[in-house]
Amino acid sequence: MKTVIGLDFGTDTCRALVVDAGTGAELASAVVAYRRWKQGLYCDPLENRYRQHPLDYIEAFEESVCEALAKCPAGTADTVVGLSFDTTGCTPVLIDADGQPLALRPEFADNPNAMFVLWKDHTAIREAARINELAAAGPIDYTAYEGGIYSSEWVWAKMAHVLKEDPSLLPAACSWTEHCDWMPALVTGKTRPQEIIRSRCAAGHKAMWHPSWNGLPDEDFLTAIEPRLKGFRNNLYSETFTADVAVGTLTPEWAARLGLPRGVVAGVGAFDCHMGAVGAGIEPRTFVRVIGTSTCDIMVVPNEDMPAGKLIPGICGQVDGSVLPGMIGLEAGQSAFGDIYAWFRSVLAWPLDNILSKSQLIDPDTKEKLIAETFEAIIPALSEAAMKIPMHESAVIAVDWMNGRRTPDANQRLKGSITGLTLGSSAPVIFRALVEATAFGSKAIVDRFLQHDIAIEQVTAIGGISQKSPFVMQTLADVLGMPIRVAAVEHACAFGAAVFAATAAGLYPDVGLAQTAMNRGFSAEYLPDPNRAKAYAELYGQYLSLGKFTETNLFAAPR
Amino acid sequence: MKTVIGLDFGTDTCRALVVDAGTGAELASAVVAYRRWKQGLYCDPLENRYRQHPLDYIEAFEESVCEALAKCPAGTADTVVGLSFDTTGCTPVLIDADGQPLALRPEFADNPNAMFVLWKDHTAIREAARINELAAAGPIDYTAYEGGIYSSEWVWAKMAHVLKEDPSLLPAACSWTEHCDWMPALVTGKTRPQEIIRSRCAAGHKAMWHPSWNGLPDEDFLTAIEPRLKGFRNNLYSETFTADVAVGTLTPEWAARLGLPRGVVAGVGAFDCHMGAVGAGIEPRTFVRVIGTSTCDIMVVPNEDMPAGKLIPGICGQVDGSVLPGMIGLEAGQSAFGDIYAWFRSVLAWPLDNILSKSQLIDPDTKEKLIAETFEAIIPALSEAAMKIPMHESAVIAVDWMNGRRTPDANQRLKGSITGLTLGSSAPVIFRALVEATAFGSKAIVDRFLQHDIAIEQVTAIGGISQKSPFVMQTLADVLGMPIRVAAVEHACAFGAAVFAATAAGLYPDVGLAQTAMNRGFSAEYLPDPNRAKAYAELYGQYLSLGKFTETNLFAAPR
Repeated sequence: MKTVIGLDFGTDTCRALVVDAGTGAELASAVVAYRRWKQGLYCDPLENRYRQHPLDYIEAFEESVCEALAKCPAGTADTVVGLSFDTTGCTPVLIDADGQPLALRPEFADNPNAMFVLWKDHTAIREAARINELAAAGPIDYTAYEGGIYSSEWVWAKMAHVLKEDPSLLPAACSWTEHCDWMPALVTGKTRPQEIIRSRCAAGHKAMWHPSWNGLPDEDFLTAIEPRLKGFRNNLYSETFTADVAVGTLTPEWAARLGLPRGVVAGVGAFDCHMGAVGAGIEPRTFVRVIGTSTCDIMVVPNEDMPAGKLIPGICGQVDGSVLPGMIGLEAGQSAFGDIYAWFRSVLAWPLDNILSKSQLIDPDTKEKLIAETFEAIIPALSEAAMKIPMHESAVIAVDWMNGRRTPDANQRLKGSITGLTLGSSAPVIFRALVEATAFGSKAIVDRFLQHDIAIEQVTAIGGISQKSPFVMQTLADVLGMPIRVAAVEHACAFGAAVFAATAAGLYPDVGLAQTAMNRGFSAEYLPDPNRAKAYAELYGQYLSLGKFTETNLFAAPR
Repeated sequence: MKTVIGLDFGTDTCRALVVDAGTGAELASAVVAYRRWKQGLYCDPLENRYRQHPLDYIEAFEESVCEALAKCPAGTADTVVGLSFDTTGCTPVLIDADGQPLALRPEFADNPNAMFVLWKDHTAIREAARINELAAAGPIDYTAYEGGIYSSEWVWAKMAHVLKEDPSLLPAACSWTEHCDWMPALVTGKTRPQEIIRSRCAAGHKAMWHPSWNGLPDEDFLTAIEPRLKGFRNNLYSETFTADVAVGTLTPEWAARLGLPRGVVAGVGAFDCHMGAVGAGIEPRTFVRVIGTSTCDIMVVPNEDMPAGKLIPGICGQVDGSVLPGMIGLEAGQSAFGDIYAWFRSVLAWPLDNILSKSQLIDPDTKEKLIAETFEAIIPALSEAAMKIPMHESAVIAVDWMNGRRTPDANQRLKGSITGLTLGSSAPVIFRALVEATAFGSKAIVDRFLQHDIAIEQVTAIGGISQKSPFVMQTLADVLGMPIRVAAVEHACAFGAAVFAATAAGLYPDVGLAQTAMNRGFSAEYLPDPNRAKAYAELYGQYLSLGKFTETNLFAAPR
């Protein structure tokens, strides 16, 4: 037996998953939280500033791998042949000439601007606006393959921002790296700027890298964003790599720290959802959705089916090989999905937290338990009640833009709506409308692909909500009018990393064969009910109509 | 000292209020619930069938008067010179040749169709549609002074409906009476159909009575609604009377039952809000609002300021003398006001009633108390929190049509909306938007009057919400951009009946002088904040725009 390790760096934790490289069977798994992050260090939520210290990553990586291996049968460590990393993204950091993240240097050890700038950090809004101005005005629209709008969440805006805000970094900073590129660089010892093997996924989706303009945007464009970026381009890259490629083998030091044999291969990294899609068995015509607080939606189209220069407008990006080599990876997503249900729960919990919590009728301990018990049960109880409401008894229609709209056609100014309310509209009726709204938002994305001749025949779902809520999944199937299969694999992202590790280690000639061999199948399938699908088609028209009205008339200017 | 008694028949109870006829000071008050009604007899909420037994009225009347007098200083009963009645409306009943409500005959004692059909009974929807067809097709639009749409809540639809549904009533039934006309008829012994003194208020607002077509609609029109109405018109009326007129004096029997002296005058009755407006000191240019679960809004315009034939479209009705003699009474209203806050409370209470109620952590008694305590505190706590939110921090806009729209332009198909929602929209933020929405709905009514040159300079509020919620009243003042005074009198309707009783008994030459002498003043005044008023003027545009969109695009057909 040969084994591989998939590493999944999420927002709060690192998971290590040890997998049988022949069958895909899971041997063990361990999760370790980021220590400094957990204490709230280096962040300021009011300013949307979210930074993570490189030591958090190093420690969580080492501990999770050792813990997972310790849970495996004795001798498993010796069977490991490869490991691969997925991380959140875009999560970049400034590095010095040795390739060290600046926060690893003593003088910057507590400087948030010298740390990784987490995907959801929004401090670079001004820099993103500048990039969009420049891209629109210049001869080349460098944002074309990233949906046409550069986000403050992406690398060039973030790096320009920290350099501008903090000139003290400049003498040391000479390049940057994505978290997903730094991990394999670190463990293989190839950290110097020109050595780092760069992920196609990160480069194409976030760094405006594209072969048609010879890689990254040119120096003039970059220094126009921020003069302090001068010279960075020379210390970055022109080539990028798909995640089936090996970066190298573990350094002796890292092999020793992890208790692994020599020769273990580390593969090229990628962003979490892209590896998650592979973990869920993505193939052409299958729309893979990572459904959690928000959604990340991934499609692949064989290169030969996608004419050069063809653009799908209003999605998050399209990058050759960002998911599977030889195919265009298309990314889309909803800004809020489960977050909308959690929002409604918090609205309903207001009397618990603000009135009942002050009651003198029961002791503080019991009160705390009672509030927690009730809070936890809200979404399951709402789902159960909502499922029983006959479709024709509710006229409530909602629009799911409570956190703006990511795709189709990003617009963060948009807001959510609920209409069709009567004095009889109960909490479950409203909850059902919110679930329908998140499904309508999904349909808007699917329709965008279909309108541009990207065929979708079925949906594969991964992520917490796909496993926890049959009600949501059935509604989604009914609204889309498509079958939805839930991937059986519990930790799809880490599993996808394991599939790539097996390929990078040479156990399979390509990822497709690795996917097939290690395939874990599906745990559930939701088939659309034809009657409900038909009824939803009509309600979807109302969703579009209400959304369009609010977009055109109400949210053009902030209140 | 001379005293008068105001009787207010509400939906659930009868209140008797003993008042010093010289100063307006309240001596005593008593409330008695309708016994059979309280047991839920004769009603079917699922069918919107609400009937009240005449004995409920008789018993509650007698008991409330005796109880109120018993609370007064000894000898007060001997000082009583008059009493007047207001009731809910339209609340009519079929009567026989002696003027008895049919349910007082042994053979119909338990027959709901032989009882008073309460204002909110909606069983006559088909008959109302028929009336609207006939009115639109015929040479005269008999609905013109009732807002242009005849409602299923009104007398001709209701009487046609019970006759159609229940042919057994026909041999006995020969006419009908409103509750507000039957009470003075009963106590003065003038109950026979042709003797009953009919209220201008009820006749003009609900029975399509108007001098321009010589009173009630003609026989052909009425029998076209329902052939069984044949002959009713002859047993009804051509003349109607304002509430300052005396019907007669108490019969010896009723004087004895109530413990009152001979010669006590009973005045002409009217609907509750119309007398309530007088109790609140209505005068021209003052918009009087009875604000409770819904609103009833009353204006008066001197006859000389209102050209003959002038119609204010889309309000509930305009009737010469329905409020004050010599003035056109204009009625409008919102289908839901406090009911919207109560609806939101019930949404927020869902986890209490459906999850916490099943907890095993505490004993059933404590649980019940805890739920009740929390429930009761929801609206006050939301108001307190909502008041503290800076205006610019919320972008939530709601439309108040959760129970349809009564005025302007009745449309029961409409539904409520909430937009501008974000993941940070807390329960108090939403509550504030709902309060603003009820205020915007009020502004739409005020604007309708203003657009038709009905001057409004200030608002006088009565009803539960005006006394309980400074937050709602201040928001209303800010949205309307007008001062709002809250009438000090607690039971404005019963008090208005007392003012009319004093006039009908001859203590004052007209109602205006009685109002002045008995004036109880105001308990609070809310002045609009100019900055908020200006900001709300803009948000009101968004309210109108969202409402118009949903009316035109979403609720044209039922889901």
